[in-house]
Amino acid sequence: MDKSALQKELVKMLGKDKVLYDELDLMYYSYDSSFLTKLEPANPWAVVLPRSTEEVQKIMKLAFDNNIDIIPRGAGTGETGGCVALKGGIVLDLSTWDEIVEVDAKNMQVILRPGVIHADLNKELAKYNLFFPPDPGSSQMCTIGGMVANNASGLRAVKYGCTEQYILGLEIVLANGDIITTGGMKARCIKNVSGLNLTKLMVGSEGILGVITQIRLRCWPRPKARGIAMAVFDNLDDAPATVLDVYQSGILPSGIEILDSSAIQAVNQFKPEINLPDAEAILLFEVDGNPPSVKYDGQVIKEVAGKRARNVEWSTEEKRMAELWEGRSITATAAARVRKDGSRIFAGEDISVPLAKVADTLRAIRALGDKYGIKVVNYGHIGDGNVHTAPVINPENPEEVEKVLQLVHDIHLLAIEMEGTTTGEHGVGAVRRKYAELEHGQAWQYMKEIKKAFDPKGIMNPGKLI
Amino acid sequence: MDKSALQKELVKMLGKDKVLYDELDLMYYSYDSSFLTKLEPANPWAVVLPRSTEEVQKIMKLAFDNNIDIIPRGAGTGETGGCVALKGGIVLDLSTWDEIVEVDAKNMQVILRPGVIHADLNKELAKYNLFFPPDPGSSQMCTIGGMVANNASGLRAVKYGCTEQYILGLEIVLANGDIITTGGMKARCIKNVSGLNLTKLMVGSEGILGVITQIRLRCWPRPKARGIAMAVFDNLDDAPATVLDVYQSGILPSGIEILDSSAIQAVNQFKPEINLPDAEAILLFEVDGNPPSVKYDGQVIKEVAGKRARNVEWSTEEKRMAELWEGRSITATAAARVRKDGSRIFAGEDISVPLAKVADTLRAIRALGDKYGIKVVNYGHIGDGNVHTAPVINPENPEEVEKVLQLVHDIHLLAIEMEGTTTGEHGVGAVRRKYAELEHGQAWQYMKEIKKAFDPKGIMNPGKLI
Repeated sequence: MDKSALQKELVKMLGKDKVLYDELDLMYYSYDSSFLTKLEPANPWAVVLPRSTEEVQKIMKLAFDNNIDIIPRGAGTGETGGCVALKGGIVLDLSTWDEIVEVDAKNMQVILRPGVIHADLNKELAKYNLFFPPDPGSSQMCTIGGMVANNASGLRAVKYGCTEQYILGLEIVLANGDIITTGGMKARCIKNVSGLNLTKLMVGSEGILGVITQIRLRCWPRPKARGIAMAVFDNLDDAPATVLDVYQSGILPSGIEILDSSAIQAVNQFKPEINLPDAEAILLFEVDGNPPSVKYDGQVIKEVAGKRARNVEWSTEEKRMAELWEGRSITATAAARVRKDGSRIFAGEDISVPLAKVADTLRAIRALGDKYGIKVVNYGHIGDGNVHTAPVINPENPEEVEKVLQLVHDIHLLAIEMEGTTTGEHGVGAVRRKYAELEHGQAWQYMKEIKKAFDPKGIMNPGKLI
Repeated sequence: MDKSALQKELVKMLGKDKVLYDELDLMYYSYDSSFLTKLEPANPWAVVLPRSTEEVQKIMKLAFDNNIDIIPRGAGTGETGGCVALKGGIVLDLSTWDEIVEVDAKNMQVILRPGVIHADLNKELAKYNLFFPPDPGSSQMCTIGGMVANNASGLRAVKYGCTEQYILGLEIVLANGDIITTGGMKARCIKNVSGLNLTKLMVGSEGILGVITQIRLRCWPRPKARGIAMAVFDNLDDAPATVLDVYQSGILPSGIEILDSSAIQAVNQFKPEINLPDAEAILLFEVDGNPPSVKYDGQVIKEVAGKRARNVEWSTEEKRMAELWEGRSITATAAARVRKDGSRIFAGEDISVPLAKVADTLRAIRALGDKYGIKVVNYGHIGDGNVHTAPVINPENPEEVEKVLQLVHDIHLLAIEMEGTTTGEHGVGAVRRKYAELEHGQAWQYMKEIKKAFDPKGIMNPGKLI
C-alpha cells in the first residue's frame, strides 16, 4: 500500500476529521524537542487522531496487514525523537483523546485516556484531595500517555519515584490488533502480584511494544504543606556531599535541585533582578508533608546544609518560596539566552550518575565544553543524580553542529564511565540507541526478544529504543 | 541423564559439600508453607547450594543441555509451592549464599547476594541510618532473593510500596547459562530509563525466567519516630470507610492493618490477657516520620477515626505501641489455635480487593466459611485491600480437606468478582495458576511469549506462575 492509498484508506476508516495528510499538517509532526529532529525533520505518511480503542485496533490491523509503521505520539514534548516517524508510517496522535474516564477516589485511583495533560489531571484530582506525584517540567503540556510511555519523572522523583510507581494497569493495543489489559482485566485493587508484571514492562517502553489506550493510575493524598531551602556553596563538591548529609539526617525531601556556576551565571544574565549569589553551586530543597513535619525538616536542613554551605535560607511562605525557586524554574529558558546568536539544543541533556560522582561529572562536562569551545549550562535533579546539560550553539553553523554532536557523544560516554546512564528520565528514543548495548550488554539481546514477542513484524515505532 | 547420573555429575562439578541427594535431605525440600505441598510433598532429584555466579551458570548449562528442571529456592517461607520441585529436577538452594557485597551508603544503595535474610539486611543498613522499607511477616527468615522473586511486601506497602520499588538492578543467570545484568551493566545510579525495564519484569517472576544471583537495591533514610493508633468499630463497614477518611485527611500511614471479629475472637481465645475489645473490626495504624510529624498525624487520625470508631487509642510510647500491636502480630499464630484438633492452612490466604469492597469481601468470606462449615479467621493489610484469610481444619480429615479446597476456590473467584486479585503479595506459584487466565485474559498469552523468550526449553521452575 503506497502513501496515497493509505491516506484514502484511513479517511474511509475514520472519517476526514480524524486523518491528517496535508504536507503542511504533516510537517508539524516531523519533529519533537530533540536536536536530532530539528536537524533531520521527517514527515509521516499520515497522522490519525483516534478517540476509541476500537479505532486504534482498526488502524493497527490495517498497519499490520500492510507492514506500515505505527508511531504513537502524545504532546510531542519529548527530547529523543521518540514520537517522530523516521521513515514514514502513521503517527497516532493520542493528544486529543483526553478523557478522564473515572476518578475512583474511594479506591485511590483514576482511569484515563492517554491524551490527558498532566496539569489537568492534577487539577481534577485536587478536588478529591488527591494527586499524581510525578512532576515533569512540561506539566502544562505533556500527556499522561507520553509520561507512561517514557516513564517520566521530574522534580519530585527523589521522594515519589517515577511514573511507573503509580501505574496499576494499562490497556494496550498490540501490533496485530490484540487488546490486552495489564494488571488484571477487571481489577481495581492497588496491590496485585498475579502474573508477570507486564504493566511495569510497558511503562517506559517508548511505544515499541504497543499503543497505550487506557491508564489506571494510583493517586496519593495531597500533602498539606511545603517549604523551600536554598543553600549556596563555594565548593562544588560540597553540594552532593550536603545532599547525602541531608539523607543521612533521616530526611527525604520531595525535590533536590542543583544549579552549578554555569546555570547561576545564565540566570543572572537573563534576569538580573533574580540576583542569584555568585557561587560554585546552589542547591534547592523542597520538603512536603504536614505543617509541623515541614517545619522540623526545614530546621534540620538549615542546620545540616549549614555545615558546608556559605549560606542557607529556608522559607514556608508562598511568595518567598516562589522567589527562591525562580532561579531553577527559569534555568532552561535562561540557558537558551547565554549567547545572542545561540540556541539551547536538546541532546546529551539527561544523563544520570551516582550521587557520589555528580561533582566530578559536572567538572568533566565543563572541561568537555571548553575542549570543543561550546558553552554548556548544567542544572538538574541532583537528588537522584540526574544532570541536565544545555549546550548552546548557533545551529545554523555546520561546524558548531558537528562539534556539539561530538560533545554530546562524549557526555553520553562520560555518563557510562561514571557508572551512570545516558538517560535518567527522557528515554532512549532515536538518539541514544547506539549506547544501549554499551549500557546493557547481553541484556540488550533479551530486550530484542521481548520486542519480537509483542511486535513480530517490527512495525511499532521502529528505530526507537532498540 | 537419570537421577543418579545427575547427582554424580553435580558432585563432580561442585564438590560433595554443595550437593544434597540423600532422600532424607531431599524431603526437607519437598514442601514450603503452602497447603498444596503439605498435601502433596515432592522431592527434587538433587539440591545444590551454589555460592557463586559461575557455579550457578555451570549448573544451568548442565540442566539446559540435559533438559532438567531448575527450581530456585530461598528460605522456603513461600505459601504457593513456588520453590518446590513438582516433578523432580534440581533445587537451587540460594539461602546459604548470604553475602552483603557492599553497602554503598554514599549512593543510597546496597549490593547483595540472594540468600541474605531480610532482618539481617536491615540490621546492617541501620548502621548507616538507612533501611529497606518492605516489611514481610517472615522478616526473620525470608531471603531478599525470595522477596525479589515474589515481589514481597507486607506491613508497610501502604506508604512504601512493594519490593520492586527498591530494586535498581539484578544479575540473572538464564536457562541457557547467559548472564545478564538488568538496570545497566555497571550502573550505580538510582534513576535510569534506558531500555526496556527488565528489572521490574524480573521482580515477581517467581523463578520462571532465570536465577537471581545478585541484587542492587535502593535504601531510604530511616524515619526517626513512629506511632500506633488502634481504632475499634462496632460496624464492619466503618473500618474501610475510616481508612479512606484518613487518606483524604492527607495522611499516608506506613501501615494500616485490620482484624475482623473472627481474628479478635481468635486472639482473645489464644491469649486472654491481650483482651482485645469485642468488636466487629479493629484497625491499627502505624505512622512514621520525624517526631512532630508523627505527633500531628496521630492527632489527625484520632480525630478522623473517632468519627466512626467506638474508641481510638494513640501512642508513641514503645511499650504501649508493642501492646497495641500485639493482637495483630499474634493473629496468625492465634488463628491456628481456634480449634484444638485443627491447623491453619495456607491456601486462599492472600486475596487483594479494592478498598471500597473490603467489607463486602469479608462478609462474603464469612458466609462461605459458614456454607462449608469451616472456621475462617480474617486479618490483613487493609490499607491496600490485601486480606489474609486463615481457614482452620483438621488436615487428617479427607472430608474437611475436600471442603476447604472448595472454599479456597470460592475465595479466589470471589476476589476476581470483587475486582481484585487472587494474590496481593504471596504470588501465583503452583497454587493459583488456574486463575491466571481468568485474571489476565489475552495478556496471559503474552506472558507465555516472554517466558519462551527467556526459557525456550521450559526448564525454569516449571508448573509455576504460567
